[in-house]
Amino acid sequence: MDQEAGGSSPPSCTKIMNKEKRLQPNLPLGFVDRSGKELAIKDKLVDIIKKNLELFGFSQLETPSFEISENIGKFLPDEGRPMSGVFGIEDNKDSWISLRYDLTAPLARYVSKNVNEISNPFKRYQIGTVWRNEKPGPGRFREFTQIDADIVGSSNESADAEMCYLLYDTLKKIGFIPGYENAYLIKISNRNLINGLLEENKITNQRQKLITIRTLDKVDRIGLQGVQLLLADGRQDKSGDFTKGAGLSDSQISNIINFVSLEGEFSKAKKFIKNPIYQLGIKELENFFNFIELYNYEIYDKNSKSYFTNPKDLDEAKIDPFRFSPNVVRGLEYYTGTIFEASLTFPIKNKKGEPVVSGSIGGGGRYDKLISRFKKIDYPATGVSIGLDRLLSAIIQYDLIKTSIISPIVICVLNKELMSKYYEILRILRDSGINSEIYNGDSSLKAQLKYADKRNSPAVIMVGDDEKKNNTITIKNLKLGKKISSDLKTRKDWTSSKDAQITTDLKNLVYEIKKII
Amino acid sequence: MDQEAGGSSPPSCTKIMNKEKRLQPNLPLGFVDRSGKELAIKDKLVDIIKKNLELFGFSQLETPSFEISENIGKFLPDEGRPMSGVFGIEDNKDSWISLRYDLTAPLARYVSKNVNEISNPFKRYQIGTVWRNEKPGPGRFREFTQIDADIVGSSNESADAEMCYLLYDTLKKIGFIPGYENAYLIKISNRNLINGLLEENKITNQRQKLITIRTLDKVDRIGLQGVQLLLADGRQDKSGDFTKGAGLSDSQISNIINFVSLEGEFSKAKKFIKNPIYQLGIKELENFFNFIELYNYEIYDKNSKSYFTNPKDLDEAKIDPFRFSPNVVRGLEYYTGTIFEASLTFPIKNKKGEPVVSGSIGGGGRYDKLISRFKKIDYPATGVSIGLDRLLSAIIQYDLIKTSIISPIVICVLNKELMSKYYEILRILRDSGINSEIYNGDSSLKAQLKYADKRNSPAVIMVGDDEKKNNTITIKNLKLGKKISSDLKTRKDWTSSKDAQITTDLKNLVYEIKKII
Repeated sequence: MDQEAGGSSPPSCTKIMNKEKRLQPNLPLGFVDRSGKELAIKDKLVDIIKKNLELFGFSQLETPSFEISENIGKFLPDEGRPMSGVFGIEDNKDSWISLRYDLTAPLARYVSKNVNEISNPFKRYQIGTVWRNEKPGPGRFREFTQIDADIVGSSNESADAEMCYLLYDTLKKIGFIPGYENAYLIKISNRNLINGLLEENKITNQRQKLITIRTLDKVDRIGLQGVQLLLADGRQDKSGDFTKGAGLSDSQISNIINFVSLEGEFSKAKKFIKNPIYQLGIKELENFFNFIELYNYEIYDKNSKSYFTNPKDLDEAKIDPFRFSPNVVRGLEYYTGTIFEASLTFPIKNKKGEPVVSGSIGGGGRYDKLISRFKKIDYPATGVSIGLDRLLSAIIQYDLIKTSIISPIVICVLNKELMSKYYEILRILRDSGINSEIYNGDSSLKAQLKYADKRNSPAVIMVGDDEKKNNTITIKNLKLGKKISSDLKTRKDWTSSKDAQITTDLKNLVYEIKKII
Repeated sequence: MDQEAGGSSPPSCTKIMNKEKRLQPNLPLGFVDRSGKELAIKDKLVDIIKKNLELFGFSQLETPSFEISENIGKFLPDEGRPMSGVFGIEDNKDSWISLRYDLTAPLARYVSKNVNEISNPFKRYQIGTVWRNEKPGPGRFREFTQIDADIVGSSNESADAEMCYLLYDTLKKIGFIPGYENAYLIKISNRNLINGLLEENKITNQRQKLITIRTLDKVDRIGLQGVQLLLADGRQDKSGDFTKGAGLSDSQISNIINFVSLEGEFSKAKKFIKNPIYQLGIKELENFFNFIELYNYEIYDKNSKSYFTNPKDLDEAKIDPFRFSPNVVRGLEYYTGTIFEASLTFPIKNKKGEPVVSGSIGGGGRYDKLISRFKKIDYPATGVSIGLDRLLSAIIQYDLIKTSIISPIVICVLNKELMSKYYEILRILRDSGINSEIYNGDSSLKAQLKYADKRNSPAVIMVGDDEKKNNTITIKNLKLGKKISSDLKTRKDWTSSKDAQITTDLKNLVYEIKKII
């Protein structure tokens, strides 16, 4: 391009500029454009969450999108997916860099790099894009926004409780109703329960362990019968695909099913097995739940439609938002203790109206070993991660965050001789904080009104020869007269349609416009 | 990691976990971490700019980080840099995807894709990271944030003026003083002037054209003498590197020097040469300046230290912020008409205090050919791009945006028996919107005070046995007593240092804390 100016177009451009073959303006699979109201709600959502993170004492951190590949490894939550992986690029000889696939691995690198400068414990939050080089599918994107908060340097269960309560409190402040139907639950478990269960049942074969853990994660989707099949010989899903099972014995299977059936019953779970690893998990959870109780959290009462604080007598109308849930797994990698997951109890749909499989919109837990990859000592850590895009879908679906994008007032250009008048009006409106613009095209009044309509402008301003003569300004209220505008063809038509029209002057302009907005 | 749980660590992790060789927690070259006040100022800066973009009638758009490589081509502003390029990844057989290197090429793709859905003209803004796979250097990063606004579909000079005025007005709202020393200028030129100048002087050789244009761009850095050398045989810079010159004739060189000397003198420039391409540029600029004047923009008067609107008599104390500047080039690619650049007239330094070479913090202009890569017709467009990171450096340097990060109030854990009291206090503080936390570690009071100090907490709250007995709460004002705290070793030391200490109760807690904050 720009050949006359001596631009040295690279070869790719020259090829592209070949007029015979025009480019197709598509996006790569797994990536989307976003605009309008969705972004306005997203901005407001991020504000709410950030404010709450700061209320909880977290400070903002921003790490870059690229890290040295070996520093962040590849601790992806689900190794079972096809093409699962990261976007990596060879940077120099022997040196690869990767786009971050989460915000936890970069945190571990950051803490190790700055261990002498940061506070102990170190509390940070980060909001950022993460990338997964996965096979894209409906509702599965290759880049998405995560919000993470972590406490590094404390092994105390109070830190785990703080992270879990933060998740509960953030969702409540967004407008979800904890514990109520059409609402969310915080499901809680501990990796040591699962490890103890496997040991107790002598499930030591790596493949069997892997399938067993993955199967726990699927209870909500496939039910107890599906679990039974997957732990035995295998299961055929609706699409006809057969998944080979773990091949466990009947007694092993029945022990795991019994464990899963402890959902919501932590006091029973305490006595389930005496295995020491399992009991370590129980002890950690007991401490954790003791801290959670200290928060004096609110429980919604369906009958009275109001909140109760920490009632001793939970009944059908009052569901505890913090629930012991043995099928919580949180992926295969790096968790070492108490884990939790926020689950919406109603189906979320994506923009196309397709239901999104899982109701999980965030979670986290304790991971004490991640930083020891850099430092000789274990550095205890616990954190929470919220998936902003899925959360946003749920918020839009239930209209939880109200926001108004105020489209600009359009000042129509009726007569180029009157330009200075239009700019005078523009200046007055903008100085009053009213979003506004002069129409920038070269088209007819009809096209200008069509433009304002498409932009969803609340009003247009018209000053033509008549207004100039009478020193007046005409405002057309598009909110009122939306349907008429597209039928108007000429200025004459317009002056004969008076219903959504105001005549005013410069002095009263801002007042009249603010009434319309 | 997490081997007992059956995690299938990928090979890379197993290698990493080899205890013999610990990882080095470094970042790839050209990437940085950001934290604390810098991010708080950045957030506030983005808010100011977004609000102004919406005031000007622009709507937000978010395109993904990756695009299909051939769709965005490689229209980088400076092909002369070593290793200049984009981050590309092979996605499928015969299909590459690239991280966007600017926000204009994705806009062209978006407009082409959605031409039937969007308004005409189409006005959008976008804030986003862009990536350049360049050789990193001091102050040269491989990812940075850009804020772009564009009007697509209008060939009217009013659109160019709107973009340019937006740049002026945004910088003014941020706190820079237009036209004043220690301030900024908007430098304006037109690509047709340069094209006409080259044609008139019969500079048709691609290499000579390229060097001539690049040399214009360097006037501010190397001066007229340096320009002369580069246009002739060549120039040796301070480091001893020799750049081969364009080899122009004396009369060609003197014509170009004469052109550059028209800085600030548009009325002289009108009569400079009669070349038709040059005169087309003049006509476009005349129309452009007529629109700029209609904005009734403000000019700072150094003598009276106040603003004047559009005064006829500019003198030494009143510098016009919009300046005709023939050395503005704006890169080699895609611009076709009027171009402009916001230039800070004082040196910007980076975080390390090293001066950043160029004072340009944003610019833009008309590019009418970019969308025709997809559509058969030319789609006129004009836009502006602001480099957020460089702008942020300047703002921090001159302290233009005030912001306060309020670190959390730390509730110390003195006695685990009193935990419920601590959580009661936490609840009261957070319900009042006060950033606060209970110390999450397991350490001594000394460590807790050191922690609060490091976090820059305004105060700590202490409830021990004495306070419990008297039903009181002790607040230590760290703002007052910052220097004492690190010397305190025991609770006993503490009670003997009374100067920054308040005794209160639950009822007056919020009042007392708000006084401190």
